[in-house]
Amino acid sequence: MDSLEQMPKGDTMRLRKRHIGESCKLFYRADPLKIVRAEGQYMFDEKNNRYLDCINNVAHVGHCHPDVVKAGSDQLALLNTNNRFLHDNLVVCAKKLSGLMPEPLSVCFLVNSGSEANDLAMRLARAHTKNHDVITLDHAYHGHLTTLIDISPYKFNHPGGSGKPEWVHVAPCPDVYRGKFRDVDYPNQDLGKKYADEVKNICKKAREDGRSICAFIAESLQSCGGQIITPPNYFRNVYKYVREAGGVCIADEVQVGFGRVGKAWWAFQLQGDDVIPDIVTVGKPMGNGYPVAAVITTPEIARSFRNTGMEYFNTYGGNPVSCAIANAVIDVLEKEKLRDHATRVGNHLLNLARQLATKHILIGDVRGVGLFVGIELVKDRESRTPATAEAQHIITRMKEEFILISSDGPDRNVLKLKPPMVFTHEDAEHVIKILDEVLTEVEDEPPRKINTNSPERRKLEDGYMSCNEKKIRIDDQQKEIISKS
Amino acid sequence: MDSLEQMPKGDTMRLRKRHIGESCKLFYRADPLKIVRAEGQYMFDEKNNRYLDCINNVAHVGHCHPDVVKAGSDQLALLNTNNRFLHDNLVVCAKKLSGLMPEPLSVCFLVNSGSEANDLAMRLARAHTKNHDVITLDHAYHGHLTTLIDISPYKFNHPGGSGKPEWVHVAPCPDVYRGKFRDVDYPNQDLGKKYADEVKNICKKAREDGRSICAFIAESLQSCGGQIITPPNYFRNVYKYVREAGGVCIADEVQVGFGRVGKAWWAFQLQGDDVIPDIVTVGKPMGNGYPVAAVITTPEIARSFRNTGMEYFNTYGGNPVSCAIANAVIDVLEKEKLRDHATRVGNHLLNLARQLATKHILIGDVRGVGLFVGIELVKDRESRTPATAEAQHIITRMKEEFILISSDGPDRNVLKLKPPMVFTHEDAEHVIKILDEVLTEVEDEPPRKINTNSPERRKLEDGYMSCNEKKIRIDDQQKEIISKS
Repeated sequence: MDSLEQMPKGDTMRLRKRHIGESCKLFYRADPLKIVRAEGQYMFDEKNNRYLDCINNVAHVGHCHPDVVKAGSDQLALLNTNNRFLHDNLVVCAKKLSGLMPEPLSVCFLVNSGSEANDLAMRLARAHTKNHDVITLDHAYHGHLTTLIDISPYKFNHPGGSGKPEWVHVAPCPDVYRGKFRDVDYPNQDLGKKYADEVKNICKKAREDGRSICAFIAESLQSCGGQIITPPNYFRNVYKYVREAGGVCIADEVQVGFGRVGKAWWAFQLQGDDVIPDIVTVGKPMGNGYPVAAVITTPEIARSFRNTGMEYFNTYGGNPVSCAIANAVIDVLEKEKLRDHATRVGNHLLNLARQLATKHILIGDVRGVGLFVGIELVKDRESRTPATAEAQHIITRMKEEFILISSDGPDRNVLKLKPPMVFTHEDAEHVIKILDEVLTEVEDEPPRKINTNSPERRKLEDGYMSCNEKKIRIDDQQKEIISKS
Repeated sequence: MDSLEQMPKGDTMRLRKRHIGESCKLFYRADPLKIVRAEGQYMFDEKNNRYLDCINNVAHVGHCHPDVVKAGSDQLALLNTNNRFLHDNLVVCAKKLSGLMPEPLSVCFLVNSGSEANDLAMRLARAHTKNHDVITLDHAYHGHLTTLIDISPYKFNHPGGSGKPEWVHVAPCPDVYRGKFRDVDYPNQDLGKKYADEVKNICKKAREDGRSICAFIAESLQSCGGQIITPPNYFRNVYKYVREAGGVCIADEVQVGFGRVGKAWWAFQLQGDDVIPDIVTVGKPMGNGYPVAAVITTPEIARSFRNTGMEYFNTYGGNPVSCAIANAVIDVLEKEKLRDHATRVGNHLLNLARQLATKHILIGDVRGVGLFVGIELVKDRESRTPATAEAQHIITRMKEEFILISSDGPDRNVLKLKPPMVFTHEDAEHVIKILDEVLTEVEDEPPRKINTNSPERRKLEDGYMSCNEKKIRIDDQQKEIISKS
């Protein structure tokens, strides 16, 4: 596979260090991966080592799916221009997207990224409601743009963040395992309703303070927040309160949309057919890696936006290539019945993970739907104290076993699995088998205690584990010895 | 060419009206074009009519350039993942970009659009200076995101805009033909310096008001502002004043970069080797239509951003496919010596346009550099009153002659030419020949006077001319007669 490299890995790293902003982080920082090709659910490094990809929800229908590659390549050779000209790919894409949404979500805006989609969603909401304030969930992440950092506690409450703007209201994340209201503390209670009441209170407080709600925005299943499965009755109630307060409801489906949850195309649909947002944003999986995303809204909101008189022009948004690719992704999902597949494989994976939980005390919770799965690690099942260092160590060890998984949640203790949708039963079994072994290792010899304020701890919090730094230093010494000999 | 359509044009239009937000405008709204393929400087409609493309600066090295198509297609089939893995395409792209910039601009951030680039540039500037206020130019357009509309008078001063935010300061556009300081009024004066003094005054006033300047942002040649050629000594002085005030200088090269100006890679370089911005944003031409853009800055500013501790992650930014395409575009520019070509063809076009100006009183000014050319139409050369309706009529007539040109500037009276860089001498001659004929027509029979507040006027201002609406209505009646017969 040497021919797939243009330079040795060391040179790639040196050039990256010199010419790419260091704010752009690598996975496995202590020993990053150089990936040169990928196929289906597998990625290959420069030495042709094959990694099972359990995290790349962007490569939705499988890395380099031939239908998607063909659609993109053919269109690239034919025409790639902006949407000020009529093109069939654009209208076919918009028709497909609208067809996958419940009524009255039927008007689309094509953009290049989930971030662009969420920014536009906010513009639509403001144009429609004439209000400004936004309700967001704790630990939410909605994108890398200035306005989205403003509504992302995952960013503004962390290093480099400048805290919550006045016009942003943060509702608790509806996490029934380690959130404000826990299942154990409120047995047999409607926690969805209980968490929704928090939004109701925010609306009430805002009104008392003379503020007006523009929008409520939430991922239908919170991802960075820790693979959270929204409890039943949450959105139904939240949407009611937000609308009563004059706001609109935005469902961020950028990470979880396009059938990942199996039984529905969109994760908000898991909450019932009557739960319909006013604006939906979609992205990542839509282009299987190609930059394409969209906002889908109601004719009424689109009309309010048009009535402002301001044109919306997005240079690449909805170009014939992006749309050819998005259309191919949707076609593959349907043709290969990947939603059903996600349900079957996801259920198998969840069952296996739950069996693992009976064996390993570190596993506090296993949750998921379709191929959106979280395994929450805790030091103690009673207190549910997050096992952060353990989670990071496991990620590094899994990589050594050629499995790519990652963690999320405010304490980075939730192992997340959101693989390409072509992930198989055998892949699920393999991941669980290796995870079993690694958990046994960790339980036999837990990682050294780490001071929560130490630089090591900060590295851990960045999610780029260096548990094997010592090992690497030894390797480097060995290399030196070899090169000297 | 029927096989390139998935449905008749009427159906495309109906689906578009139903499923695409109406804020997304079409060119030639009264009779939009359906383009199904393109090659070099030509676009073809569904009836295989060939149009000469004089406006598509995104299809930089020519529509569907085979090298770019091949680079994109090959990489699409091999790997398309995010930049948390090492990849040679990314570092090669960053090295190429850095190599094309003057020192110390050597650190890159890869993103998906010029808008994302400008938003990130603002974030970098804020992290570095810790200030918030931004100086922008009148009539500037920097992108479609919320934060960029805030710094775009072209948007915030127009329908749907909410006016200038408090933290934004607007300096006059350095337009020496119809701007605040005109060449005729200040003969033999350094107008670059004179316009720069306006920025100096803004900095002074801000300080007096207790405000701190974060950044000055400007296109190196203002595009939407009306194909403005920045007068000499402007940026040299502005950059000095802005830096003295504690701000950084951002050059927006999204429209005009990548050799369009011929003699330099970047338009800011036209102002002298000593004129070096702190942050440069690039986009549109970079991907020849593929969504890729970048921010290039100094190690110092990148370090300030890193030191905030906030990670910057852009899902598709710098993926192997975008970078393969960007690298191919740069290679083609070099291999085919397109910068030299742009200088030669651009000079020829300018000369021909200047000859045309001696014949047609409507032409008030001809300006340009390389393949960035503006022909400003005026009703009267003395008062320089903009000939808006005439410009719009000409655009429509040129389309009927299979030439795509457009207009810009606050009064939409500047015909703009910014064709793919493969535009030839013969293309230039053809455009001027047809423009000559159309100008003669208009001068013989000027378009009817239009009330400046009428709906017609508004349509004109949207830039989607309806001069042939009457003709179309007749056509529709004829169709009806035919279909009834």
